[in-house]
Amino acid sequence: MTDDDLLATGRVGHLATTSADGRPHVIPVCFAWVPPVLYSAIDAKPKRTTLLRRVRNIIETGRAAFVVDRWSEDWSQLAYVLVEGPAEVLEDGQERDEALIILTAKYPQYDDLPLIDNLVVKVAAERVVAWRADQAVAADDAQ
Amino acid sequence: MTDDDLLATGRVGHLATTSADGRPHVIPVCFAWVPPVLYSAIDAKPKRTTLLRRVRNIIETGRAAFVVDRWSEDWSQLAYVLVEGPAEVLEDGQERDEALIILTAKYPQYDDLPLIDNLVVKVAAERVVAWRADQAVAADDAQ
Repeated sequence: MTDDDLLATGRVGHLATTSADGRPHVIPVCFAWVPPVLYSAIDAKPKRTTLLRRVRNIIETGRAAFVVDRWSEDWSQLAYVLVEGPAEVLEDGQERDEALIILTAKYPQYDDLPLIDNLVVKVAAERVVAWRADQAVAADDAQ
Repeated sequence: MTDDDLLATGRVGHLATTSADGRPHVIPVCFAWVPPVLYSAIDAKPKRTTLLRRVRNIIETGRAAFVVDRWSEDWSQLAYVLVEGPAEVLEDGQERDEALIILTAKYPQYDDLPLIDNLVVKVAAERVVAWRADQAVAADDAQ
């Protein structure tokens, strides 16, 4: 497995953001990786989405971290890829629309929950760190 | 399933921290929930652990957020529990030693990777938010 595989095929990742007063927040999210950019849609109704903490945090602080990982009870199989960088909330426009199409193509579940006017969280991958237990040590400092 | 079940039985969670200059970070971690406290051990060698970002971030900013969730391709089965609060790094002492014992009891994998002199991340649950897709709506604002 290469690093790209987890980003390309992972079904759920975890998005961390921080509020203006420094409080970390983390939530599981569906995502699409379009190198070097990560997209994630906000499922909730548009009128309520500005209340969501991840949205508010990104508007306030403009950064996010995202990790997609593989869990196994066999710890030699553990792996993750961490993506960090500037983040923004796309409210409309061509990039937002294309992201919604890509996310809909990846997740058939969106057929029942159509992404039409949804907000999109965009994280520009300024830094990507891949870690695998079977190749560990070298990356320890970066964790 | 009650909220406590995910915290009690979940095998992997995700810990978010923030650096002094506001950069979010997130990483998968093993954990033990001893209400109202969450413990997670640092596996790496003690001499290198201060280099780890989650350790440095907690020392710098004193807070963490943690989420344990259930993923399913059937989105009606999605659930998570988010724990937030003050965090600290325990370097020694009775509480640290007891946390290592509890973590070792939960994860037989530690038999091959004995927790003896390891650091422990402690998060005091100031706020716990549980969300389940099949009971959603009410908790939307808290996400």
